[in-house]
Amino acid sequence: MTTQHHDDPALQELYADFEQHNLLPLWTQREDLMPLVPTPSAVAHRWRWADLYPLAVRSGTLVPVGRGGERRAIALANPGLAGEPHATPTLWAAIQYLGPGEVAPDHRHSQNAFRFVLEGEGVWTVVNSDPVRMSRGDLLLTPGWAWHGHHNTTDQPMAWLDGLDIPLASCLDANFFEFGPDDLVDRSTPRLSRAERLWAHPALRPVQGAAKGPHSPLAAYRWEHTDAALRAQLELEDEGHSGAVEAGHAAVIFADPVTGGDALPTIRTEMHRLRPHANTARTREVGSSVWQVFDGSGEFLLGDQAVGVERGDVVTVPSWTPVQINAADSGLDLFRFSDTPVMEKLGYARQQVAGETE
Amino acid sequence: MTTQHHDDPALQELYADFEQHNLLPLWTQREDLMPLVPTPSAVAHRWRWADLYPLAVRSGTLVPVGRGGERRAIALANPGLAGEPHATPTLWAAIQYLGPGEVAPDHRHSQNAFRFVLEGEGVWTVVNSDPVRMSRGDLLLTPGWAWHGHHNTTDQPMAWLDGLDIPLASCLDANFFEFGPDDLVDRSTPRLSRAERLWAHPALRPVQGAAKGPHSPLAAYRWEHTDAALRAQLELEDEGHSGAVEAGHAAVIFADPVTGGDALPTIRTEMHRLRPHANTARTREVGSSVWQVFDGSGEFLLGDQAVGVERGDVVTVPSWTPVQINAADSGLDLFRFSDTPVMEKLGYARQQVAGETE
Amino acid sequence: MTTQHHDDPALQELYADFEQHNLLPLWTQREDLMPLVPTPSAVAHRWRWADLYPLAVRSGTLVPVGRGGERRAIALANPGLAGEPHATPTLWAAIQYLGPGEVAPDHRHSQNAFRFVLEGEGVWTVVNSDPVRMSRGDLLLTPGWAWHGHHNTTDQPMAWLDGLDIPLASCLDANFFEFGPDDLVDRSTPRLSRAERLWAHPALRPVQGAAKGPHSPLAAYRWEHTDAALRAQLELEDEGHSGAVEAGHAAVIFADPVTGGDALPTIRTEMHRLRPHANTARTREVGSSVWQVFDGSGEFLLGDQAVGVERGDVVTVPSWTPVQINAADSGLDLFRFSDTPVMEKLGYARQQVAGETE
Amino acid sequence: MTTQHHDDPALQELYADFEQHNLLPLWTQREDLMPLVPTPSAVAHRWRWADLYPLAVRSGTLVPVGRGGERRAIALANPGLAGEPHATPTLWAAIQYLGPGEVAPDHRHSQNAFRFVLEGEGVWTVVNSDPVRMSRGDLLLTPGWAWHGHHNTTDQPMAWLDGLDIPLASCLDANFFEFGPDDLVDRSTPRLSRAERLWAHPALRPVQGAAKGPHSPLAAYRWEHTDAALRAQLELEDEGHSGAVEAGHAAVIFADPVTGGDALPTIRTEMHRLRPHANTARTREVGSSVWQVFDGSGEFLLGDQAVGVERGDVVTVPSWTPVQINAADSGLDLFRFSDTPVMEKLGYARQQVAGETE
Repeated sequence: MTTQHHDDPALQELYADFEQHNLLPLWTQREDLMPLVPTPSAVAHRWRWADLYPLAVRSGTLVPVGRGGERRAIALANPGLAGEPHATPTLWAAIQYLGPGEVAPDHRHSQNAFRFVLEGEGVWTVVNSDPVRMSRGDLLLTPGWAWHGHHNTTDQPMAWLDGLDIPLASCLDANFFEFGPDDLVDRSTPRLSRAERLWAHPALRPVQGAAKGPHSPLAAYRWEHTDAALRAQLELEDEGHSGAVEAGHAAVIFADPVTGGDALPTIRTEMHRLRPHANTARTREVGSSVWQVFDGSGEFLLGDQAVGVERGDVVTVPSWTPVQINAADSGLDLFRFSDTPVMEKLGYARQQVAGETE
Repeated sequence: MTTQHHDDPALQELYADFEQHNLLPLWTQREDLMPLVPTPSAVAHRWRWADLYPLAVRSGTLVPVGRGGERRAIALANPGLAGEPHATPTLWAAIQYLGPGEVAPDHRHSQNAFRFVLEGEGVWTVVNSDPVRMSRGDLLLTPGWAWHGHHNTTDQPMAWLDGLDIPLASCLDANFFEFGPDDLVDRSTPRLSRAERLWAHPALRPVQGAAKGPHSPLAAYRWEHTDAALRAQLELEDEGHSGAVEAGHAAVIFADPVTGGDALPTIRTEMHRLRPHANTARTREVGSSVWQVFDGSGEFLLGDQAVGVERGDVVTVPSWTPVQINAADSGLDLFRFSDTPVMEKLGYARQQVAGETE
Repeated sequence: MTTQHHDDPALQELYADFEQHNLLPLWTQREDLMPLVPTPSAVAHRWRWADLYPLAVRSGTLVPVGRGGERRAIALANPGLAGEPHATPTLWAAIQYLGPGEVAPDHRHSQNAFRFVLEGEGVWTVVNSDPVRMSRGDLLLTPGWAWHGHHNTTDQPMAWLDGLDIPLASCLDANFFEFGPDDLVDRSTPRLSRAERLWAHPALRPVQGAAKGPHSPLAAYRWEHTDAALRAQLELEDEGHSGAVEAGHAAVIFADPVTGGDALPTIRTEMHRLRPHANTARTREVGSSVWQVFDGSGEFLLGDQAVGVERGDVVTVPSWTPVQINAADSGLDLFRFSDTPVMEKLGYARQQVAGETE
Repeated sequence: MTTQHHDDPALQELYADFEQHNLLPLWTQREDLMPLVPTPSAVAHRWRWADLYPLAVRSGTLVPVGRGGERRAIALANPGLAGEPHATPTLWAAIQYLGPGEVAPDHRHSQNAFRFVLEGEGVWTVVNSDPVRMSRGDLLLTPGWAWHGHHNTTDQPMAWLDGLDIPLASCLDANFFEFGPDDLVDRSTPRLSRAERLWAHPALRPVQGAAKGPHSPLAAYRWEHTDAALRAQLELEDEGHSGAVEAGHAAVIFADPVTGGDALPTIRTEMHRLRPHANTARTREVGSSVWQVFDGSGEFLLGDQAVGVERGDVVTVPSWTPVQINAADSGLDLFRFSDTPVMEKLGYARQQVAGETE
């Protein structure tokens, strides 16, 4: 194979015949097709909130929200992914913006979705007829095939982060979509959704409704609980007990209370807290992720590249790219989502921590 | 077989030879051994708190607590179980009493245990070196092979309900026991255990320490959460939504947040709330259970027997015994524990609801 | 507690009041109730086939088989279990005998059952209307609630080993029984059952009918397959490869092809082969087991007791009793069944191998 | 949104700013990104064995096999996938050809692979040092990260079908590759691999080595077993019993004996048999598949397109494309592989059978 002459006319004729019959030889492209380690097209990239938010505001004045376009969502298009609106090969991330009094109409799709709220309040997302308040720090789920629409009940606009598995569903040709009624069925604005009232009790399961499904029955994970869980891990560390991920680094996974697994079947969602000046271990893993700075500032070391981050900034991390995060004086609160459940379920998961296995 | 003559000398000789060789024929006892439906020896029975508590107090004055006897626990001995100290064939239930300043020394055993607190406060149970406060309405776990000891930090006595799978472990010859140090390692009295600080956040899982085990990592299920979960189910019912078990009846299972399954591998633990005058469906199921009235009063219909119950009373329900519970004016809050996980895991579970399948 | 005076009149009065109220103190019986290690009442015991078979033959002449008694089965009653017809606290074992042309009528029960055939042929067991041939070395399943009856199509009697979880189901009050029609619905005598034709193909699953249930869909595990699997393990060992359990000791588990788990939810069934003069490690584990010598002879070391065994002999091993098996010149083929799945599912499983952890 | 003017200069400026900041609006591409039903780029396509095999033979004379190119494998490039060497968005399929005496060198990769043998014999694939014979009708596994190389021991060439999840691993950036030694470690040619000798016994599990992994421990699924399983289903149908998928259609899944699940974590492998003139139901499902005719001839109805198929022909079926298969006089034996496990594990699975839910 190494000795073959590519200008051999017989070989050229063979390759032409291959092409005519929709065939491609492995031996000329094995290296590209089966590289030694992942060679993502996606790149590590940071979007600044200072850019994102003003653009969202401008969209609000220029683009109406309504049936057809469905959402005023601006996707973070990874510069390595050739004009695709994908943050990574599996994950879609966008800033969604809803002006005063606006309504994003009801629909559903097979893609799994969540919202994570950096700031603001006054919007309710109605998930399977259950109105769910959206406030700073909350994670809100709209799992695959759940009906959902949003409405802003205030005279202030609101923007948040949307995360979906659109690229994965596209890659797998698993995308279904259905329009709901043009108007929302329930415009009430309860503080807690019915899903929360049933399910958001620590390690308590209603006797009714405990059937296992692909996703969590809990529509909202409130900041007050997330914050308390992170704080407790660091306090335990202060007292000399285990609980934190590593020195100065607390983290929780948003879970499905019915199974203990991930809240969504294709997306892991996590919240991380780093103390002032804390550093994570340099780690790389199979699969891609998206981070948003919820609070504080610091630095991401992505391979050989150092990127400063401030509140609201969004960072993509391609597969097998080493990541280290360093918090500044302020400490860092970080929301993360990733395709880790996909890797784990399909048997592709690998992780390498600097100093441990390298 | 129906025509055999039991007074046939050849048959008598055969039976004698059986006996000599440690053999027993099936055909003479098939009916007893394999009845049409379960024929429990255990009976439905009620113990009155009005009897239990004074006896516990008397024990406190007469019997020291300490190494050897280990616990001042008074077991509820089912009248049908021939002097065995068992509430049912699988479950052990006792009133444990700890006087002012007393210490129940550290030990561990393969039997799974919990405490449920009817009233009082000021005792801490130290589980694997983690001090766990015990207060009214709390469920505290000491799963199989977890070290645990208790100490009363006040000048008031305290009594609570202990539940264990002692009879099951005995039936299965699976009982191990080990003494710990004579004194407790940690006499601190934190409001929350470390286990709670890590795990008692709704549907949030620490990134560290999420390994699946046979039991919940959560040492305490607090009344404030249980109460809120039950109240929410009834409020949802008031608003016309699902969530309650049946009309006027709310219930939660104490769960393992890592798996969503039961908190203990052999014992299901639940809290039930009936509105004033609410009635449960008449139901029977394979497996036995023990109920304690946490609040209110009412009536248990156990087969053909009606038994009034007041706060603190304990009721045993043998396998396949029809149960209906009726709340009085006060409504009823009921703690329940049962061997249901055993039946489910071993494939023996059956349930029959009056009017549905009978 | 250690210092209390049992002849204290106040204490005696307290204990009398306990008794009156169906209460029993833990402190006077903690040691019996919660021993340091399992203290089984069941004993290690051997039944000789040379005794069992002639008694079965005598039963055949004296006791008809038919409706009511249902089966001509002679139970091995563990000498430690006080006249109960139980081989161990969870397992029932019996020799069943069916004379020429006899029929054991159709019934079903919640107890899980199997037959293991030491010798003979010509009997079919009809399981859920599927006739299943019984021949030497075969394991035949009649899982909980499956209809089953047997008929002998020949002019020769046949005897085999029955194994059930009767004691476990009794302990748990989970026993249901239902009579079927007096005569068998299908007296055909196919070489292979329909269940085998669908399921007895190595690692192949029919696209239809692959639903997970509590037990294996396969009604028969044939000796030719079991023998081949054991032989292969020892041949691999001869060639220097792994596969055998330990030196000279091959073993297989009879599995549920749908889940890979045990064939029955409460009983593990295994076949073991020891080369001539091979010895197993001395091992003890939580849970009890019953062994039958299928071929060859040798010796069981059960605690401090050595018991010689010949073809057909049956041996019971109580929980936590050390066992070592030594094969004689002939080597040893051994069928084993145990309650190990119960211990594993309920979190009670422990094992100790001499030289490893003792 | 429907009323926005795309020639509005402010809007154009906004879109330019989006582009500069690596952003893309959802509202202009929502329909493409989230279609109502899957809109695969891949197309249904048939490759004729009459074309494939001669091209493979020509490759054999022109292209050496060896280190670097690694395999003489000719990939079936779906005409809809823009020059990618992918049969479907998740599956790679190729004809691999090995000349007399040739060796394909040892390597391993994270991608899961299998070989399915249409015809020929004399090649052994050495999987984790275990030589595995390849013969007509056999399915051979080389799961992710298993070492493997092939060698042809005869003076005849051999060709077979390779199936891998290369496109999926590429989409997920989960591809790892490692070269092994240039020569094979074991050139022996046993009839059965060691994996088979341990695992290819119906529903028997070695006591050692039963740990759950992501894939089957069984390296080879032999045609004699597959054929017998299919034949039995149709014989049961002849006798009036269930077992076949539908009238005249038998099918088996190649399974992992440890779990009962799919043999590979990302690829379902199946064998189907249609009686002469039998027709399958018209069915569509989420996910893509590749079929190869093992024997017989017939017709695939793929959406509105009818495609005749002969022995060896390969057909791709994109996601959500209706398929019906009609057998000719000869009947049809079909090997199929698909990404169904991916859809099931990730919660995307859907199926629609004509006449049932349409």
